[in-house]
Amino acid sequence: MVYIIRKEHFNSAHRLFRPEYSDEENLRVFGKCSNPLWHGHNYVLMVTVKGEPNPETGFVMDLKILSQLIDEKVLQKLDHRNINLEVDFMKDKLASTENLAIGIWEELEPAVHASGAKLHMVRLEETENNIVEYFGNK
Amino acid sequence: MVYIIRKEHFNSAHRLFRPEYSDEENLRVFGKCSNPLWHGHNYVLMVTVKGEPNPETGFVMDLKILSQLIDEKVLQKLDHRNINLEVDFMKDKLASTENLAIGIWEELEPAVHASGAKLHMVRLEETENNIVEYFGNK
Amino acid sequence: MVYIIRKEHFNSAHRLFRPEYSDEENLRVFGKCSNPLWHGHNYVLMVTVKGEPNPETGFVMDLKILSQLIDEKVLQKLDHRNINLEVDFMKDKLASTENLAIGIWEELEPAVHASGAKLHMVRLEETENNIVEYFGNK
Amino acid sequence: MVYIIRKEHFNSAHRLFRPEYSDEENLRVFGKCSNPLWHGHNYVLMVTVKGEPNPETGFVMDLKILSQLIDEKVLQKLDHRNINLEVDFMKDKLASTENLAIGIWEELEPAVHASGAKLHMVRLEETENNIVEYFGNK
Amino acid sequence: MVYIIRKEHFNSAHRLFRPEYSDEENLRVFGKCSNPLWHGHNYVLMVTVKGEPNPETGFVMDLKILSQLIDEKVLQKLDHRNINLEVDFMKDKLASTENLAIGIWEELEPAVHASGAKLHMVRLEETENNIVEYFGNK
Amino acid sequence: MVYIIRKEHFNSAHRLFRPEYSDEENLRVFGKCSNPLWHGHNYVLMVTVKGEPNPETGFVMDLKILSQLIDEKVLQKLDHRNINLEVDFMKDKLASTENLAIGIWEELEPAVHASGAKLHMVRLEETENNIVEYFGNK
Repeated sequence: MVYIIRKEHFNSAHRLFRPEYSDEENLRVFGKCSNPLWHGHNYVLMVTVKGEPNPETGFVMDLKILSQLIDEKVLQKLDHRNINLEVDFMKDKLASTENLAIGIWEELEPAVHASGAKLHMVRLEETENNIVEYFGNK
Repeated sequence: MVYIIRKEHFNSAHRLFRPEYSDEENLRVFGKCSNPLWHGHNYVLMVTVKGEPNPETGFVMDLKILSQLIDEKVLQKLDHRNINLEVDFMKDKLASTENLAIGIWEELEPAVHASGAKLHMVRLEETENNIVEYFGNK
Repeated sequence: MVYIIRKEHFNSAHRLFRPEYSDEENLRVFGKCSNPLWHGHNYVLMVTVKGEPNPETGFVMDLKILSQLIDEKVLQKLDHRNINLEVDFMKDKLASTENLAIGIWEELEPAVHASGAKLHMVRLEETENNIVEYFGNK
Repeated sequence: MVYIIRKEHFNSAHRLFRPEYSDEENLRVFGKCSNPLWHGHNYVLMVTVKGEPNPETGFVMDLKILSQLIDEKVLQKLDHRNINLEVDFMKDKLASTENLAIGIWEELEPAVHASGAKLHMVRLEETENNIVEYFGNK
Repeated sequence: MVYIIRKEHFNSAHRLFRPEYSDEENLRVFGKCSNPLWHGHNYVLMVTVKGEPNPETGFVMDLKILSQLIDEKVLQKLDHRNINLEVDFMKDKLASTENLAIGIWEELEPAVHASGAKLHMVRLEETENNIVEYFGNK
Repeated sequence: MVYIIRKEHFNSAHRLFRPEYSDEENLRVFGKCSNPLWHGHNYVLMVTVKGEPNPETGFVMDLKILSQLIDEKVLQKLDHRNINLEVDFMKDKLASTENLAIGIWEELEPAVHASGAKLHMVRLEETENNIVEYFGNK
């Protein structure tokens, strides 16, 4: 078993808040991340896929194919978007890095599976200091 | 003359657009950066100040002081904010990295000058690939 | 289960030596790291905590809380300190990166546990080339 | 059990191709990586070794020793070399990052084992976006 | 005057040698960089352009346009290529980082000039430790 | 004129203090950097040299030679040393990054000059956020 990792980037706006909270309550729980007029991040996304290298190509999966698949399933929906307002798979969810990593996993997993490999990890860096890793529902 | 540099970060939302343009025209000129529902960035700010080291301290300027000054004059206004809607010194300006670097220079320059040193450069990284440097009006 | 990572920094002095060795023996075993007049590092600390995201906040643990906890339990004791002479939890231990990572784990684990999450990994980078990871006593 | 990581670099030329394919077929399968006149990379190699810290030294394994061992077994063969033409352990193999990581594991494993520690992972970064991790034949 | 910087990457093979030298002489002068079977690098290219921001767009020059121009004039010729054998503007030149930076400047300068801005610097990083900066023929 | 840059590292202990100050006064002026039991840093040193490329080699100066010269004149004195107590060229000086950069310039300048090139800049990063650049006495 060999693990391959592809690193991608996207730039999005979001805010952390619960609609049933007052602005004061959101500020108390989520701090400046609750700003009603949004803020944003340069997210760094690292996707790990595992499998046996194909003897014909030496690849677990062609990283160009993995990159296109991430672009189609994830980046097209998130890049230069408002995560709270424009991303179908984040609708009605808190836009935390944890929930975003889980959402990205669920978008990617069927497509990686269909390619014959296995999704192993989604790592999402909101800033260089705040990072989430998700290995699926286990 | 010695140059000292302090690196800081802020995370903001913005969009590039002209209010007199239609959405289509904004999209044509500014691409996905014109998204009306905003996107955002982890901006990296590097501020260079020059002067002679103080013989008593060995410092051109105490970098903790410079950091506090940047925080007070710039980060408090920009961090976790919407650059188009909430930042006084960007009001009625296009929120390009160029204009933002010039605006930051103008906020910082009087305070650095008052401290006895000279502001030399404001460098602003919108992403690791897109960077602006401004050396003042000369 | 979701994993969250917080990255912090501290700058400390240390030396590697055994008090019962002569200076020559310490030099032979520990090389230039045994310099009796100390040297130091910008340590990079990455702390991984795991748990289920809280449905109310979307957080495994608020990263600001984790950062404060690391500051209180670890950075206050290590930052701008002499690891051999001033750090209670390193007393009478060799100040290797391995022992320092284990010591940091033991300082953090009860506090993370009390917060309702689980400490998963302490990663300590002495330099960008020399790194230690510790997953607890298992 | 503690994990230690040593980061090293090497700069090599390679190409991806199958000798029984035509140039067109190699281009279709391997893209620009099949260029018959070679291209190259600054590879980043991270080697993880695990074990118990030696009570006498505080080290799982002296990182200087690990670095020398990587130099002798791997870097001397790969650095400033043509991976397809000059590297004995890659002879008759596709020079993919996957196969190179497996080859490096096989070169290192006996030497790490002989030192009393256990090789845990070989991580090879071909570019900052394309990375492979190998944990041995399991 | 504002300076904008675009960062790009290319991966190429090269060797340092003089055809009139023997292999031994090339090895003596150029070290392992003279390996006749090539080696390669992940080059990092930073291009600085200066000018006044356009009042209509806030841009000195649209960084997407600058990126396309770098791609067309430089990356298409260098990426996944052999610098000694396949790059027209390096023909009969020593493939040192210095000469490559000068060659890239000469490829880019007319196109940047035609766009109405001024090329200020070409910075080329062969490795993270070996870097060249060129400001044109002055 | 072409500029070449070599990046090097050293790890040292230091403290900021004036011997005629009390501990309280040193703490007030220099903060935690005045800790009497030292702290330390992974310093990053970038040395820029300028000149015309030698037509025979394509080099302004062989970067291996520059690296050896930096090692001999600077790193041998600073690496794994106490800057206040063990470094001849810092004797009786405040161990600020500014003074250290000036001291390194003075150590390097005659040797670079003797090689036929010109020293252009010494850049010293104490941390990734605190940086000094020195261009000589002008």
